[in-house]
Amino acid sequence: MAEKITPRSENYSQWYIDIVLQAKLADYAPVKGCMVIRPNGYALWEKMRDVLDGMFKETGHKNAYFPLLIPDSFLKREAEHVEGFSPELAVVTYGGGEELDEPLIIRPTSETIIWSMYKKWIQSYRDLPLLINQWANVVRWEKRTRLFLRTTEFLWQEGHTAHETADEAQEETLKMLFVYKKFAEEYMAIPVLAGEKTENEKFAGAVKTYTIEAMMQDRKALQAGTSHNLGQNFAKAFDVTFQTKDGTLDYVWATSWGVSTRLIGALIMTHSDDKGLILPPRLAPTEVVIIPIYKNKTKATVLEYCNRLYQSLRGKYSVVLDDDDQNTPGWKFSEWELQGIPLRIEVGPRDIEKEEVILARRDTGEKISVPSKSLEQRIGEILEDIQNNLFKRAATFKQENTHGIEAYEDFKRIIDSDGGFIQAPWCGSSECELRIKEETKATIRAIPISNNGDANGKKCLYCGEDAKFIATFAKSY
Amino acid sequence: MAEKITPRSENYSQWYIDIVLQAKLADYAPVKGCMVIRPNGYALWEKMRDVLDGMFKETGHKNAYFPLLIPDSFLKREAEHVEGFSPELAVVTYGGGEELDEPLIIRPTSETIIWSMYKKWIQSYRDLPLLINQWANVVRWEKRTRLFLRTTEFLWQEGHTAHETADEAQEETLKMLFVYKKFAEEYMAIPVLAGEKTENEKFAGAVKTYTIEAMMQDRKALQAGTSHNLGQNFAKAFDVTFQTKDGTLDYVWATSWGVSTRLIGALIMTHSDDKGLILPPRLAPTEVVIIPIYKNKTKATVLEYCNRLYQSLRGKYSVVLDDDDQNTPGWKFSEWELQGIPLRIEVGPRDIEKEEVILARRDTGEKISVPSKSLEQRIGEILEDIQNNLFKRAATFKQENTHGIEAYEDFKRIIDSDGGFIQAPWCGSSECELRIKEETKATIRAIPISNNGDANGKKCLYCGEDAKFIATFAKSY
Repeated sequence: MAEKITPRSENYSQWYIDIVLQAKLADYAPVKGCMVIRPNGYALWEKMRDVLDGMFKETGHKNAYFPLLIPDSFLKREAEHVEGFSPELAVVTYGGGEELDEPLIIRPTSETIIWSMYKKWIQSYRDLPLLINQWANVVRWEKRTRLFLRTTEFLWQEGHTAHETADEAQEETLKMLFVYKKFAEEYMAIPVLAGEKTENEKFAGAVKTYTIEAMMQDRKALQAGTSHNLGQNFAKAFDVTFQTKDGTLDYVWATSWGVSTRLIGALIMTHSDDKGLILPPRLAPTEVVIIPIYKNKTKATVLEYCNRLYQSLRGKYSVVLDDDDQNTPGWKFSEWELQGIPLRIEVGPRDIEKEEVILARRDTGEKISVPSKSLEQRIGEILEDIQNNLFKRAATFKQENTHGIEAYEDFKRIIDSDGGFIQAPWCGSSECELRIKEETKATIRAIPISNNGDANGKKCLYCGEDAKFIATFAKSY
Repeated sequence: MAEKITPRSENYSQWYIDIVLQAKLADYAPVKGCMVIRPNGYALWEKMRDVLDGMFKETGHKNAYFPLLIPDSFLKREAEHVEGFSPELAVVTYGGGEELDEPLIIRPTSETIIWSMYKKWIQSYRDLPLLINQWANVVRWEKRTRLFLRTTEFLWQEGHTAHETADEAQEETLKMLFVYKKFAEEYMAIPVLAGEKTENEKFAGAVKTYTIEAMMQDRKALQAGTSHNLGQNFAKAFDVTFQTKDGTLDYVWATSWGVSTRLIGALIMTHSDDKGLILPPRLAPTEVVIIPIYKNKTKATVLEYCNRLYQSLRGKYSVVLDDDDQNTPGWKFSEWELQGIPLRIEVGPRDIEKEEVILARRDTGEKISVPSKSLEQRIGEILEDIQNNLFKRAATFKQENTHGIEAYEDFKRIIDSDGGFIQAPWCGSSECELRIKEETKATIRAIPISNNGDANGKKCLYCGEDAKFIATFAKSY
């Protein structure tokens, strides 16, 4: 560990960047706003991808791959869509040494190219539902970028489904939202708020956008995944009709949904501390590191013991033996803590004599002495406990920093001081929403998925008219 | 199965395209030269990727991800490299609504961007070897394209390694060549010729390029994977030096190696027949399909039996039950044969009575009656046998169509009639190589990895001077 990590209390943004760079998760690329995902970061992304991919396949989706380059004219077919994405496009104007007749856009998202293909593939209700996902890179030209959280190129998955009815599309939209919520909570150990976006905040081209929102340690919100009901917008733009069961023609109903490498940023900012990264065991590429502690005369015994330990554990856990003899155990402790490995096993000559080892938890720092013979089982239990503890800790933090507020004065005071999520009654008008944003920089992160009556009898915190929703406001990434 | 597949004997190229389209492996994209990989094709690619990825990790490599966009100036740093790739580049000139100061190139391959990062990451011999692989999309502007075999955008993996010594780099180059050979032969069931490329045919920027070459059913060669020893070319272009063990500074030694979605084209053209695709069981996303055969009064019994069968097999094999009642069994036989599923289980009421089922092999068409109680085991044995049979069949074909020839007249006659691989003595001069290419369209696909003395006493088939190698010539994709 060459440099020290800036403490969160001193400079939260720098703390985040220090962890990303020093834990070797990512690095700045020579092209502005782009990143290189280094092996430590990519291994984490692979774990996340594999779990999500399994969840998509369990819910009936298949993977495919659509082209990177989209004809300029395609993007223009859906009016809101092109308006939303125009400022962010990267444009190819030369190919094979010649100027192109029509510029090609590097996909910022793939609705248009995919719906141009769905027109070929969908004729009848028998072709529906069509449930396709793709893992891909996309490019959105961003002015202010930050590693993982907002980069010009990023990796993501985008699901694109086609359905017979509006109801089915809505059902799919919510099903995938809850797949994301389950993934965030059960694997990333990040509690999230699931809800609907307002008109102002929805995806360009969607009828409804749903979101999962997480709270970072600086109490700002981070949008961690979105699921869109696209209605018939793209089917109409690309003239995708199908023969219904009763023989008429109708436009197809659509959804799309995605999560990206941004999730890695969310993971870091939810769990990590001033020593570095903390990884939830279910997503940690390495779960356990063994560190031998010896002097010259005990070296052979300790290394041999550690080697046997490594061999006995490696079938069951993802384990690394750090037997490099150029670094001290203390240096290694810091280095592996920086990298976020959930559990450390310390083995010294006296531990071997006593037939026990020391386990050190990354989440709490707690050291636990464990008899060698029950080690394998205890590791599993402790990893499970770390997973649960990380979730509980984050859930408590989120709960403690969520405030129910009805008066605008209180709202402004809390947004400016403590921050966090503020649940407040809102009339549903864009005007109030935008005024609040202008005056406080807080946006509506989510409203309840259906009007659940919670706001009955309450007044909008801005205009004082009857409230429609209890909306959740926050400053956000 | 809506359309008939053109027989190979009638039109080999059309046969290939018919299979790709009708087995729904890929489709033409709206952008010229690009393809959409449909779920059937992508599931196959995922299987291939997972096996290869495991082999890369076993040999110590880690995955990472480098940016899609490369500054124009980077590509120009290695003279041969830019000359080789210039005609094929796609160029981004606008980003975020503004003209860029420096155009960005969509990666045709990533040596330059990766070595610009290796400069930051490598200081000392302790940072070496650096063994990194990336799975990515690349773009090369191609004039003549064909689905999977040559497309403007394709998916691939590219390994990029850095080493202390020339010897280590050479060892890595050959190690990965033989990983590819093993994958091709043991998983794809494609026998390949491993060898070195000539100066004319090597990668732009490499010191040496090695290749695996497969023989398609039209007896043309297909380059299926390449591994390059890059020497210090890219280290010098990007000024990547390291402190050696004895304290001096040296440039780093490099390799790169890749295989792409082109392999799917090789797979199709090696094994398939006039009924459609044939998949080797080890890569088949679906290994077994169950087809119930019933009349109205036996329907319930047969479906219930098939369902139990499906449940009992699904833990062990990747199996599909086709219980759609809109299509006849005959239609289903054809459809699943078209899709290349290795093994079909046919279940009718009389089979149930006799406590047996019929297995039909995709490779030979053979039907085998198997007692239900030994079914699970027999499926495994037959799948293994299909895998071996496909390899043997292809190996025999390759052997029968490989000719040892010493006279140029014979060479020309065979290249124009039978085709195939021709092993012929060659003096080693580019002039002879290029003349032969001009006159016959045959190129040197590979020369032996080291001069093994096979050519001793022989004369070059073109100029009659002393031969250095027995080179393998062929027309190729």
